[in-house]
Amino acid sequence: MTTTETTPQSTDIQELINSTPFLKELVRQVRAHDAYGSYRNWSDELIIKPLVVTKEQKKKISVEGEVDPITKSRIATFYRAIASRIEQETGLLSQVVIDLSHEGFGWALIFSGRLLLVSKTLRDAQRFGFESFEKLAAEGDKIVNSAIELAAKHGEIAQL
Amino acid sequence: MTTTETTPQSTDIQELINSTPFLKELVRQVRAHDAYGSYRNWSDELIIKPLVVTKEQKKKISVEGEVDPITKSRIATFYRAIASRIEQETGLLSQVVIDLSHEGFGWALIFSGRLLLVSKTLRDAQRFGFESFEKLAAEGDKIVNSAIELAAKHGEIAQL
Repeated sequence: MTTTETTPQSTDIQELINSTPFLKELVRQVRAHDAYGSYRNWSDELIIKPLVVTKEQKKKISVEGEVDPITKSRIATFYRAIASRIEQETGLLSQVVIDLSHEGFGWALIFSGRLLLVSKTLRDAQRFGFESFEKLAAEGDKIVNSAIELAAKHGEIAQL
Repeated sequence: MTTTETTPQSTDIQELINSTPFLKELVRQVRAHDAYGSYRNWSDELIIKPLVVTKEQKKKISVEGEVDPITKSRIATFYRAIASRIEQETGLLSQVVIDLSHEGFGWALIFSGRLLLVSKTLRDAQRFGFESFEKLAAEGDKIVNSAIELAAKHGEIAQL
């Protein structure tokens, strides 16, 4: 019996990125904050790959102690991309606040005016990541869409 | 010509605390988090005095570098007392999030459901404090009252 290689090919990933506005925005966010040009020659896939963390990999990451700066910046990038997608779809400028005070526990918030567009509790943030590129895209889109819905219903609170 | 002593007497401060729900709540917050009983024998005045920082004192505090843990906990206490007063007046349970990522710059947020009851930018947080006990009471009450007003108007967003 032969097992089929299930790891998606790179061309597939690049196609997925090209066809998913959220993933494209993630790539753009990383490149935009790349002040020293470290990622200039990296592929889009490589740039967002740190957000893909499989169950196996998660098990190996300790949740003791504070979240390291690289993981923090990864979490911030994810939510900044979401905020940016919300802005593109609704025109609402929003703020991203990540509060990771208690050893991997905390909040990721995106708000506009007095409306909380995104409100997520974080736990075991040391292990922040998604099972696959597809899951990353799906979860990003889900959060963006529910924020857009909320903004459509309660736009007046976002203008306060 | 004689100058009049303008520093309020301690009995005056204790009266001010007794007659101001916000200041009473501040004292209660500090005592509630005093796990080792360090403040057990302190007067109410002494307990909230660190939140009184005069202009002269502020000038002497450097705004270089990160905010130290004691100042952070002072800021958290102030906003926790506000959240607690809001809960007493509206019945709304709320979350306090303080994000001080950028060397004294950041956000203090209090939210309930999807409604941001309090949304304050912080700057020069190293110097966080109020000119006098009266100003501390007035500012606390002002923030509480505007949150209550918001909650009354948009209660349904707080229930989301």
